[in-house]
Amino acid sequence: MNREVWAEAIGSFFLFCTVIGSGIMAEQLAGGNVAVALLGNTVATGAMLFVLIAMLGPLSGAHFNPAVTLVFRLRGDLSSRTALRLVAGQLAGGIPGVWAAHLMFNQPIVQLSTKARTGPGQWTGEFIATFGLVFVILGTIRHRPQAVPASVALYIVAAYWFTSSTSFANPAITLARALSNTFAGIAPTDVPAFIAAQLAGALAALAAGRAIFAQQEPAA
Amino acid sequence: MNREVWAEAIGSFFLFCTVIGSGIMAEQLAGGNVAVALLGNTVATGAMLFVLIAMLGPLSGAHFNPAVTLVFRLRGDLSSRTALRLVAGQLAGGIPGVWAAHLMFNQPIVQLSTKARTGPGQWTGEFIATFGLVFVILGTIRHRPQAVPASVALYIVAAYWFTSSTSFANPAITLARALSNTFAGIAPTDVPAFIAAQLAGALAALAAGRAIFAQQEPAA
Amino acid sequence: MNREVWAEAIGSFFLFCTVIGSGIMAEQLAGGNVAVALLGNTVATGAMLFVLIAMLGPLSGAHFNPAVTLVFRLRGDLSSRTALRLVAGQLAGGIPGVWAAHLMFNQPIVQLSTKARTGPGQWTGEFIATFGLVFVILGTIRHRPQAVPASVALYIVAAYWFTSSTSFANPAITLARALSNTFAGIAPTDVPAFIAAQLAGALAALAAGRAIFAQQEPAA
Amino acid sequence: MNREVWAEAIGSFFLFCTVIGSGIMAEQLAGGNVAVALLGNTVATGAMLFVLIAMLGPLSGAHFNPAVTLVFRLRGDLSSRTALRLVAGQLAGGIPGVWAAHLMFNQPIVQLSTKARTGPGQWTGEFIATFGLVFVILGTIRHRPQAVPASVALYIVAAYWFTSSTSFANPAITLARALSNTFAGIAPTDVPAFIAAQLAGALAALAAGRAIFAQQEPAA
Repeated sequence: MNREVWAEAIGSFFLFCTVIGSGIMAEQLAGGNVAVALLGNTVATGAMLFVLIAMLGPLSGAHFNPAVTLVFRLRGDLSSRTALRLVAGQLAGGIPGVWAAHLMFNQPIVQLSTKARTGPGQWTGEFIATFGLVFVILGTIRHRPQAVPASVALYIVAAYWFTSSTSFANPAITLARALSNTFAGIAPTDVPAFIAAQLAGALAALAAGRAIFAQQEPAA
Repeated sequence: MNREVWAEAIGSFFLFCTVIGSGIMAEQLAGGNVAVALLGNTVATGAMLFVLIAMLGPLSGAHFNPAVTLVFRLRGDLSSRTALRLVAGQLAGGIPGVWAAHLMFNQPIVQLSTKARTGPGQWTGEFIATFGLVFVILGTIRHRPQAVPASVALYIVAAYWFTSSTSFANPAITLARALSNTFAGIAPTDVPAFIAAQLAGALAALAAGRAIFAQQEPAA
Repeated sequence: MNREVWAEAIGSFFLFCTVIGSGIMAEQLAGGNVAVALLGNTVATGAMLFVLIAMLGPLSGAHFNPAVTLVFRLRGDLSSRTALRLVAGQLAGGIPGVWAAHLMFNQPIVQLSTKARTGPGQWTGEFIATFGLVFVILGTIRHRPQAVPASVALYIVAAYWFTSSTSFANPAITLARALSNTFAGIAPTDVPAFIAAQLAGALAALAAGRAIFAQQEPAA
Repeated sequence: MNREVWAEAIGSFFLFCTVIGSGIMAEQLAGGNVAVALLGNTVATGAMLFVLIAMLGPLSGAHFNPAVTLVFRLRGDLSSRTALRLVAGQLAGGIPGVWAAHLMFNQPIVQLSTKARTGPGQWTGEFIATFGLVFVILGTIRHRPQAVPASVALYIVAAYWFTSSTSFANPAITLARALSNTFAGIAPTDVPAFIAAQLAGALAALAAGRAIFAQQEPAA
């Protein structure tokens, strides 16, 4: 396995471990105030995203997200073979990240979520969340590339709060969250609709980005 | 419609959707602790502002705010025609952003707010909030242009807390909030006085900025 | 009055208004959870400090603090006349900032605080808080000048929490807080000991900075 | 004693004082909501880390952590003599930082913690926390050196939440926390296992960093 696959695997390990672990910590400590729990979950996730993208972006692009990898494949920035290897790295690193969170918090390693997350409102949430994520990546790479780590991290910080689904916006993390019956989990039966909405949002953002950013010259 | 109008429309969509959506999420989860709800609303709004200004500033200036567009028109940076098109983009994108928030949270799409926000204290709040916003934009563009996305975002973070009105500071978002009977809403009858105070603050800041920043050489 | 005095006055207006106003807002909304109120007060103050220093630093140095102005006078960076004018600007702008906060929140404009803040623990807190603030300014200006706005803002964010006095660290803001019987206030009889501790901390930091940073070459 | 030792001592003083002091403040104010207390502790620690690394990095590397110093010694970046002097500075500055926090909050200066922090879950937490910290330092220094202050600070912000042990990740701070019977403390009998897990994590990260970052060219 080459370096860029390792970068996706290690980054996904820490990202997914942060999403699940901070959710467990926040729920345990928040005494039933879910907004306080979501603040802790948000701060941890946004902070880790900045760190991982700043460090691993130069190696692999720091996707940690098959919807993002798909968009770069469709733009022609990656071969199909590389794209598949990156996605394999995301799952092979990310799912053990979930298990590591369970291990740290003395929970059974293997779990399945029972948390229902479904309905047109949440599907719209995932469509908008993923549209925005991909649009922000495409626009920021073109107009202010040095801001990508901060922009992606802060976009997710906002999206945890403004979307009804708390913005998964990532098929790999959706699968991984199905393996955790904790704060951040999602019941396996609700996964396919979430992933479908995410992919639809990503493809719509690819089209919108082409229309708006394509012939524009990059700023200094 | 050209690119800069699209940039104002898409940016306003995400900004207004974030203000309304994070307000709904925060109020639903905060269990009656309004300070915790305002923290969630603040973090989401500030984060999204940074992202949108960093990405769309090079395309349209990233105003998302008719008071800001008016100030740049009066400075002679824009033609009247362009200014009107930008404001049209702000409303045409921003109001659907409010409706998208309602859709995500399974609420009636079309609403009118019943939340009273009135009185000399809050009008003073809007005057000061908008004065500060425009003054910060004019000063930061001149002295530290690369800090504009962070400065505008952090100014609004502060202003959500130090002004009695939680700092709307934006006529378009004031209109849009009137269309949402949720945490961030404002009753339609209270809108005109808010907008008048905002425009007065913006014009005062334009004059103050001319006096203080005008003949100053920009820093490196 | 010249531009640098105006910069100190307007910056102090917004800084002091933010400290007092966000304290009132936070206390009103927090329902008795003082840690949540302090979080709101902290986020607003830190955000505003970044904005003001980024924008006004190139004009006046963005002190907003007589202890900082004194240190730059003792280093020989300012004449006594300029230092006195800057301090006059800090008070002439900052105290109306307190009154503006009262006006926005429908409170009596003129107040005197009754909040006791005294004892060796809090005096030690002010000594350490101001020592750290001045040390950070001297070290960051020398080694990473572009980080000054973020570093000063984040230092105060930390100091609101790690010092027992919530880190006033500023004689002008200490006087101004005595004029507000709200969350951020301090009884007038407790002011002199706070200011004495602040000046002692600032002078100690000037000496420490000379020893550690003086003959060091600046980093790139 | 030379400047780099003083830099480690003063930096460790402020870092450890912040960890302990903000823990005391947060617990006193949070009214039993431990998640709110951890938010205050997190914000203060992350903010102070950014400030200290930005300012003191150019002088000493801004380790404040014997596990980090050990890694740089094993990479050959430091002599054994320098490494020992830096660690001596960390302890000689950091432990008085704990005592200063006690003094500010009117507590007995000398304390021993009675807070149990033990078990395989927390040991795994310390292993992962320190692995991540060292991996982030090695990767960010190579690929985006100007982001080191923000990345280390934000990594610790995330790690306070995603690890079950709240991420001490530092043998010196573990010893220092044993001297404080407050929010951030750890019983002395639990210290050795924490330090062993931290050193194991640091060494594993050194090996992983060599494999992944070693022959890579730095990005611009």
